[in-house]
Amino acid sequence: MDKDALLDYEYPDLDPVPSKIEKEIIPPCDPTADDRLYHICITAISLVVMLILAVLARRAKVGDRQKGLPALLSPVNFLDHTQHKGLAVAVFGVLLCKLWGLILLPNPLPFTTGSQNKQNWLILGVFYYPALYYPLLACGTLHNKVGYVLGSLLSWTQFGVLVWQKIDCPRTSLVHKHFSLFSSLPQIACLAFLSFQYPLLLFKGLKGTEKNNATEDLSSSYYKDYVKKILKKKKPTKVSSLTTEKPKLHRRIIDAVKLYIYTPEDAFRFPLKLAISGVVSFITLYQMGLLLILTVVPNLQIARLGVDEDVANLLAGFKIMLSPDKKEVVRIVIYYIWCVEVCYISAMTLSGLVNLVMLMQSMVLHRLNLKGLYRGDIYKVYNCQRSIRASRPALVCWMGYTSFTAAHICFGMLIQTMVFFLCLLILVFFIIIPVLHGENLILFQLLWSMWPFWLMIFLALLIQHLTARFWFIKKTAGTQDLDNRGNLFLLTYLLFPVNVLIGVLLALWRLIITALFNIVHMGRMDISLLNRNVEAFDPAYRCYAHYLKIEVNQSHPVMKAFCGMLLQSVGQESNGAQRSRDAEEGIQLVQQEKKQHKVSSAKRAYGHWQILYTLVNNPSLVSTRKHFQRHSAGSFVNGSFNRNTKERGKKETATKEAGASATN
Amino acid sequence: MDKDALLDYEYPDLDPVPSKIEKEIIPPCDPTADDRLYHICITAISLVVMLILAVLARRAKVGDRQKGLPALLSPVNFLDHTQHKGLAVAVFGVLLCKLWGLILLPNPLPFTTGSQNKQNWLILGVFYYPALYYPLLACGTLHNKVGYVLGSLLSWTQFGVLVWQKIDCPRTSLVHKHFSLFSSLPQIACLAFLSFQYPLLLFKGLKGTEKNNATEDLSSSYYKDYVKKILKKKKPTKVSSLTTEKPKLHRRIIDAVKLYIYTPEDAFRFPLKLAISGVVSFITLYQMGLLLILTVVPNLQIARLGVDEDVANLLAGFKIMLSPDKKEVVRIVIYYIWCVEVCYISAMTLSGLVNLVMLMQSMVLHRLNLKGLYRGDIYKVYNCQRSIRASRPALVCWMGYTSFTAAHICFGMLIQTMVFFLCLLILVFFIIIPVLHGENLILFQLLWSMWPFWLMIFLALLIQHLTARFWFIKKTAGTQDLDNRGNLFLLTYLLFPVNVLIGVLLALWRLIITALFNIVHMGRMDISLLNRNVEAFDPAYRCYAHYLKIEVNQSHPVMKAFCGMLLQSVGQESNGAQRSRDAEEGIQLVQQEKKQHKVSSAKRAYGHWQILYTLVNNPSLVSTRKHFQRHSAGSFVNGSFNRNTKERGKKETATKEAGASATN
Repeated sequence: MDKDALLDYEYPDLDPVPSKIEKEIIPPCDPTADDRLYHICITAISLVVMLILAVLARRAKVGDRQKGLPALLSPVNFLDHTQHKGLAVAVFGVLLCKLWGLILLPNPLPFTTGSQNKQNWLILGVFYYPALYYPLLACGTLHNKVGYVLGSLLSWTQFGVLVWQKIDCPRTSLVHKHFSLFSSLPQIACLAFLSFQYPLLLFKGLKGTEKNNATEDLSSSYYKDYVKKILKKKKPTKVSSLTTEKPKLHRRIIDAVKLYIYTPEDAFRFPLKLAISGVVSFITLYQMGLLLILTVVPNLQIARLGVDEDVANLLAGFKIMLSPDKKEVVRIVIYYIWCVEVCYISAMTLSGLVNLVMLMQSMVLHRLNLKGLYRGDIYKVYNCQRSIRASRPALVCWMGYTSFTAAHICFGMLIQTMVFFLCLLILVFFIIIPVLHGENLILFQLLWSMWPFWLMIFLALLIQHLTARFWFIKKTAGTQDLDNRGNLFLLTYLLFPVNVLIGVLLALWRLIITALFNIVHMGRMDISLLNRNVEAFDPAYRCYAHYLKIEVNQSHPVMKAFCGMLLQSVGQESNGAQRSRDAEEGIQLVQQEKKQHKVSSAKRAYGHWQILYTLVNNPSLVSTRKHFQRHSAGSFVNGSFNRNTKERGKKETATKEAGASATN
Repeated sequence: MDKDALLDYEYPDLDPVPSKIEKEIIPPCDPTADDRLYHICITAISLVVMLILAVLARRAKVGDRQKGLPALLSPVNFLDHTQHKGLAVAVFGVLLCKLWGLILLPNPLPFTTGSQNKQNWLILGVFYYPALYYPLLACGTLHNKVGYVLGSLLSWTQFGVLVWQKIDCPRTSLVHKHFSLFSSLPQIACLAFLSFQYPLLLFKGLKGTEKNNATEDLSSSYYKDYVKKILKKKKPTKVSSLTTEKPKLHRRIIDAVKLYIYTPEDAFRFPLKLAISGVVSFITLYQMGLLLILTVVPNLQIARLGVDEDVANLLAGFKIMLSPDKKEVVRIVIYYIWCVEVCYISAMTLSGLVNLVMLMQSMVLHRLNLKGLYRGDIYKVYNCQRSIRASRPALVCWMGYTSFTAAHICFGMLIQTMVFFLCLLILVFFIIIPVLHGENLILFQLLWSMWPFWLMIFLALLIQHLTARFWFIKKTAGTQDLDNRGNLFLLTYLLFPVNVLIGVLLALWRLIITALFNIVHMGRMDISLLNRNVEAFDPAYRCYAHYLKIEVNQSHPVMKAFCGMLLQSVGQESNGAQRSRDAEEGIQLVQQEKKQHKVSSAKRAYGHWQILYTLVNNPSLVSTRKHFQRHSAGSFVNGSFNRNTKERGKKETATKEAGASATN
């Protein structure tokens, strides 16, 4: 058996027929704005911008502002519910698009030529890009007109150059001629948003209408509104959950639909990190969908257009005879490839839609969970008693949460597309095509030949349901009881073998249901794919649970409202000099207060009264007071007060009382 | 390209070499006890036995016994916790083995020759075999010496003929020469148990030591012991579950091990249906394991022994060159087939062991769930408030539960073996063999070439954990709080792209974990494979939940103890004439009582006192009294009392009080 024979076997028609449609060759394109030069320039500019900002920050610190360089080093406060989220969200979006390009492009960084050592450049790029886009965030931190001007210039430059490059070279050879263009659309959108946002902020700053974001957090009316809302609403929800009566059908349908459609609520704002996660997930969804479509569909189309009579010979070699006429074979093969294409696009679209719906439902669930934890429903959210406390694993999970959501959506879409594609292929080639053409109805013939079996299964089920309904259950005086026990036992014994066969169908159904559910929810971190007793073994859900802990522990709206009120009262006393403190500092306010030793007697009496009132209403707190008894009266009301209370799961009462006592 | 060329290509060595090892041909064997004749005889005998039993039952009814034909028609009381379970379990075991043979044998019923119309005969067999083995159950129902004698004879006959047939024809052509023999071992064991049990019962009956099973249920000391135990034990379990302190490590290990090892407890007996399910599951496990081994392994062995130098040519045709030497190729192929064989056997064994462990854990969980529901911990068992009430779906699920467990084990083992086999193959051929031979280390080379990437991932994780532990978390006065927030936010931003890459690994890990968990637990009905909020969509778990409802609703030990005591007090009054009533009748006792109008005034006063005492202690029951206010005082204490109480989830208090009041 020599090689020639094998070749002969594969291509017996030795006349070389070139495939009709060659893959379109895209000439390498050098944009006018050379990427390497541009990156060197923009890096230098960013460095200069950061230096200017640092000088500004140092000068600002000399004045009455409390922040300076530290503020510049943490341009985004992830634990703030009230700040304007646009800037952070847009920068994260740009960063994600860059990471996407980093992984797919043959040379990840523009400084390199060729694709040798791609891995090392990728690792460098992973740290280079966050640093590159850092000034875009930092320019908004100082709330300074110069900062806004710099931010505007920087974002305009980045936006302009990117658009210019894409207009110069709209087509690249990567994946598909238009992949690069489509893939950079979210990045362009984010940069456009930034280019619009910075001038807007500058304009507001010039007009003086801009609020000071740093002090906005604690003094904002959002937390007060939240407290007012929970104090106002007194729905008897507990009673309704205990009653066993089921709500009416239309009510239940509305409730079910509400779980999938996110409607904003007045007294609830998304934490910044969740908002970023949402946008990042959406961009991932777009990028992944684009990649999945553009890697497969154009190739399938080329294959479809390239089908000629060689295919008939090839198939004949494998003893597959679709038709005696070669033209007919070509027609059939083209039709089949077209079907595969349709299946693939449908699977991808389905996966995208499923993930969109899941994203919406996630947002509703996030809100429910956060509100539940604010109320103290720890058991309902976590299914066990947990202490809502900052800990090492919780903090690590909190840091990674946004990234992990993006990765999970990506992975989930890949798995979903594969599985849906397979299912659709089976559906089309084993059911739809045979039905349409009325041939190869093997599956139907098999099922039809088993009709006595199906009839038996159906009758056995019917008998069990009917007898259970009308013979074995007796309704007396509003309660249901068993009747005719002897016959029930007899029927149970006699139907034992039939039920084993029914059980096999049930097991198959179970397999399908569980596999489908888990695959559909693969991209979601906020629900566990495991059984309720071991759900913490699901790493994604574990991460989400930890994330929620930090979020609730550190930015509980009632706690923030309480701290804001304390700051206000202090501010009234010390002529508002302290008012501009940062959010975190406000929480730890009273420990610093102690050092000042300037508390007036009226203030001290007020503090004593607060403690007494809170302790009388929350006797369980008395034991936790021991730590703080040596401190002054006011020191009771620091961060750990709220946290201890929350740990005991009696948060709601405590915080409500605290809020009430603070307003009195 | 003609056909000859193709054949030539496949077998270029045209000298016909017969495969060395032909599949052993097993001559058709006719046992001395011809199966068809035997079945006709045994059917006739069974019919005669049933007629004799019916006559006996009718005569017994004329006497003072309350049961008769109805008792004969329900030979097994599935809701009885105290009756001797052996007979029912053995008969179900025999029935399961027969069903197994019915599906696998080419002619399901011995009356047929050839395998035409197999399906219809199978349907007939599914109903024929339960009827055939019915007398084996019914003989023990009447507690009559004649019944025991008939039972002994019948079981001896069945046992003797089966053993005789298997000795005559130990080898059949089905699946494997010894498959039929091994497959009938559980059946032989069950019949041997019956052959031993009936004479034992007869012997006890002759000596007069046999207890009357029918009245045993309510008057047995088991229920009283149970009530005594729960009244005695007053562990403060609720307090310990609220404290957040974690138990010590060795304690937790012991607790975890206890979840997997079933140790009998004095005051708890398994419901009969669960006991049958357990044995049926075990037999299914054995049969499925046997089938999986014997269908594949002998064929692989034959293939292995049949490998000769043709294989080398065949592989060369596919351009696979294992070695230039043909002898060496044969050796390598044999070695690979042997590896596949080892993988398969390991996978099967692993699957069997996993299912055994799952069976044990199931039993522990069943007990926990039942005891929890007896206590009223509905929320803990079901994760929601449900009414424990007999309903149509609950009853249907209850009837099918035993069968469904068998089917699920069967299906689970099949899936598990396939998945484990695939995983082991990947492990052996991609990791173990390359490592052992030091060649084809593609996977390791790939991973090794990615070392900078792994190092980056590791360092990023390490940095996050270390900074979280030592820099970002501050311990003050027993509580943990965030520190250095600015740097935390900065690090979160900078590590965003790295964390996306970590997230992909996390998603992969999640996929593996969830798939493995769900596949391992595929055969278990008592846990849901879905998320806690939708666990009722898992059909198997839904069925189990319904099954538990009926079991707890109808055979709550405290209710049975209470009914037993009522029966006793009535019995003392009416000279024990009523004592031999059946269990079910006992529960509905007092409604019949009403018709007698012979309640003494002391008895009535006692009844009034009971009601008052119960109502004072359970104010929630007052509303349910309205239905029964027109009845006499005693009628309050009927079955629905207990059921209403349970529905309200305050069962424990109520039943304890009821038990206490009954003993007063």
